[in-house]
Amino acid sequence: MAVQKPSIPKGTRDFGPEKMVRRNYIFSVIRSVFEQFGYMPLETPTMENLSVLTGKYGDEGDQLIFKMLNSGNYLSKTTAEDFQAGAKHLLPKIAEKGLRYDLTVPFARFVVMNRNEITFPFKRYQIQPVWRADRPQKGRYREFYQCDADVVGTDSLICEAEIIQMINKVFKGLNITDYSIKMNNRKILSGIVETIGAPGKETDFCVAIDKLDKIGFDKVLEELAGKGFSEDAIEQAKPILKLAGDNQSLLAQSKEILALSADGSKGVEELEEIFTYLDKFGAQDHHVDFDITLARGLSYYTGAIFEVKVNNVSIGSVSGGGRYDNLTGVFGLPDVPGVGFSFGVDRIYDVLEELDLFPKDNLVTTQLMIVNFDEASETHGLGLLAQLRNAGIKSEIYPNSAKLKKQMNYANKKAIPFVLMVGSEEISSGIYSLKNMETGEQLKLTIDQVIEQMK
Amino acid sequence: MAVQKPSIPKGTRDFGPEKMVRRNYIFSVIRSVFEQFGYMPLETPTMENLSVLTGKYGDEGDQLIFKMLNSGNYLSKTTAEDFQAGAKHLLPKIAEKGLRYDLTVPFARFVVMNRNEITFPFKRYQIQPVWRADRPQKGRYREFYQCDADVVGTDSLICEAEIIQMINKVFKGLNITDYSIKMNNRKILSGIVETIGAPGKETDFCVAIDKLDKIGFDKVLEELAGKGFSEDAIEQAKPILKLAGDNQSLLAQSKEILALSADGSKGVEELEEIFTYLDKFGAQDHHVDFDITLARGLSYYTGAIFEVKVNNVSIGSVSGGGRYDNLTGVFGLPDVPGVGFSFGVDRIYDVLEELDLFPKDNLVTTQLMIVNFDEASETHGLGLLAQLRNAGIKSEIYPNSAKLKKQMNYANKKAIPFVLMVGSEEISSGIYSLKNMETGEQLKLTIDQVIEQMK
Repeated sequence: MAVQKPSIPKGTRDFGPEKMVRRNYIFSVIRSVFEQFGYMPLETPTMENLSVLTGKYGDEGDQLIFKMLNSGNYLSKTTAEDFQAGAKHLLPKIAEKGLRYDLTVPFARFVVMNRNEITFPFKRYQIQPVWRADRPQKGRYREFYQCDADVVGTDSLICEAEIIQMINKVFKGLNITDYSIKMNNRKILSGIVETIGAPGKETDFCVAIDKLDKIGFDKVLEELAGKGFSEDAIEQAKPILKLAGDNQSLLAQSKEILALSADGSKGVEELEEIFTYLDKFGAQDHHVDFDITLARGLSYYTGAIFEVKVNNVSIGSVSGGGRYDNLTGVFGLPDVPGVGFSFGVDRIYDVLEELDLFPKDNLVTTQLMIVNFDEASETHGLGLLAQLRNAGIKSEIYPNSAKLKKQMNYANKKAIPFVLMVGSEEISSGIYSLKNMETGEQLKLTIDQVIEQMK
Repeated sequence: MAVQKPSIPKGTRDFGPEKMVRRNYIFSVIRSVFEQFGYMPLETPTMENLSVLTGKYGDEGDQLIFKMLNSGNYLSKTTAEDFQAGAKHLLPKIAEKGLRYDLTVPFARFVVMNRNEITFPFKRYQIQPVWRADRPQKGRYREFYQCDADVVGTDSLICEAEIIQMINKVFKGLNITDYSIKMNNRKILSGIVETIGAPGKETDFCVAIDKLDKIGFDKVLEELAGKGFSEDAIEQAKPILKLAGDNQSLLAQSKEILALSADGSKGVEELEEIFTYLDKFGAQDHHVDFDITLARGLSYYTGAIFEVKVNNVSIGSVSGGGRYDNLTGVFGLPDVPGVGFSFGVDRIYDVLEELDLFPKDNLVTTQLMIVNFDEASETHGLGLLAQLRNAGIKSEIYPNSAKLKKQMNYANKKAIPFVLMVGSEEISSGIYSLKNMETGEQLKLTIDQVIEQMK
């Protein structure tokens, strides 16, 4: 039989025990904060009908959706003409389903399909993988997890203030201290284009200023000129893009600049209200910096937008989100406003690794291994093992009496912190040697003392 | 714009908060037992190369694998002749990847690809969904979770005894008390066909006796006759299939019957050894019943096989597994024996529901909601909320001052057990009304007392 050398698809990953334990640590911190704020879990199917997915992510997005061949004879509804007409024409006749591309569209679908059972405001979180047929490259995968939380059915800005706090609590839980939550408001961006006399050119404006970090101030102005912004408009934009000061001062300056724009003024007011809510929550160290140049993907945000970066780490934003007016309109349910945000787990993982912030002790799986010397040792050890496990201690015995070196090597590789020696002397005395694998220190203890020690 | 009525693919499900919380409860019990026994988590990609999946599940299985269209112009490598040649011929030219069909093949692939990094024996558990393009029907889904644990690289029967204990601990954790773990050994089944003079007809024998429960003794004998078993063989099989007694007695009887079959005798010995290990572990109430008629899917098992049924519930087996000699041979790595088992989470869910065993209190997400009467109430409430959350209490405030009835309805629907009233009187006195939503009882408490109470 020909033997295959197995491989995994490009852009996908296996997560072995070490990585899993670290990822689960991140997920559990995030999950517990979501739940502390009243968000409840949701999971949607991996496959969605293409009618649900298509047209929601732009033309490029549609291309990047993984499509599933219909099962059985997938050609049964096709003709030679369909084939001749090409891949795009043939597609709907051979594929009806695709893989989840993000968590927002499935959430919107869920809300619409269950609108009569859901009590609004509906706070849900969702931690699941998504798939994109992107060209794989460093840090960009075809399968990756998203962690979203959204609350829909309310326009209360308490929700924004709570999201800020959730970000703070997650970072605190992960011991990340040096980070910044940049916040802006979509209405402020409308207000700016209105104020500089370029109404309707909002998308172009946002696309350009989104590149400030990458290409710099002058190149952004060039791009604006290229997109048909008048010299006058650009002159007026300059000082706005260069506004400086603390949050209070920036809010005051923006208010003045945007005074004649209803939209712009509303945007500033909303930001002020969010800061007020943070005060009422007593959230002083909230890490929020108002940044009038933050644009973020424009598509469906209509209010506050925010993005989180960890300082002194060359990794892009690790979280972000914003408010939208109409999540579910595309599925026929109007007037469902809400606000949501997302954590990028792969990036957070990289941050924790780069800053060496993964806790050492917490991530242990097996806490203790019993060395298996011989049959008597094994027999006695099995009884001890049952006691350890009944006491809630994660433990195992080496499954046969292999050479000591081999057993110790196993414990080492598996990062098991303690090893229990059960030789003939130990069996007769009931006093066992508990070896600390890191320090090499050995203690002589009864099994009750071992249990005590391990707890 | 035409509005679509959204739907989800046949055979798939959304899991809303209530179901998620219950499913997560099951997963967490299983996960904690797996870890208590030294098993470590693994996750593999949703997509596998079809070269890895195909040929591992039989012809029928190959049909049921969901295949992914290649991204981009998937027709680029095809000709009109390929199309004419039909779906089966065209498939490999337009699809290279498929969805995970089970957790065993991806695990085998992982072991082979990482054999130099893995320290054997390797104990892994894996809790992930799998996909099958089966015809959906009651209780059979196209997307469902599997929970597998396997240990590979050892033939120690301690592993079997530990698996029995893991099943016992999971069921104890879930409060399922009335169940049976049927156990047999593949070598005993070989021994039987050898002994009754029908060597080599093992598969037919197993397929037939696998139906004992469904079609009864006489029909099984008919099927054996139909498959070419001689009258004499069938006469000899009869008493074997009707063996009765407790484990000790059954083992003794089998030993005698299979005395002339090396395989059969080995099988009985292995079972005896597993029972001995259970004794050494002190696992008395192990629920194991030796059942010489248990056949189970034959394909790759070579030693102990077992299957778990909950009594007095009309739901099939909820767990099962067995030992195999050669997990990874198909990928070019011989001599990797192991033993594994799996929990059927959907069925366990149904069992817990049918027996009303889901814990009432544990599954609460939000523990307390603050009623939002008016601006003063909200402002004061936000401060209290921060205190509650800092104390680790899952809590929320209704995000605006809606009608009381609406707020109470929200708390009810979300099954929030406590509601905190913060009116003007409460604000000035610092004594708040904590209402138990189930009993209607109201307590007057300070915020510290509320926190105390909630813990």
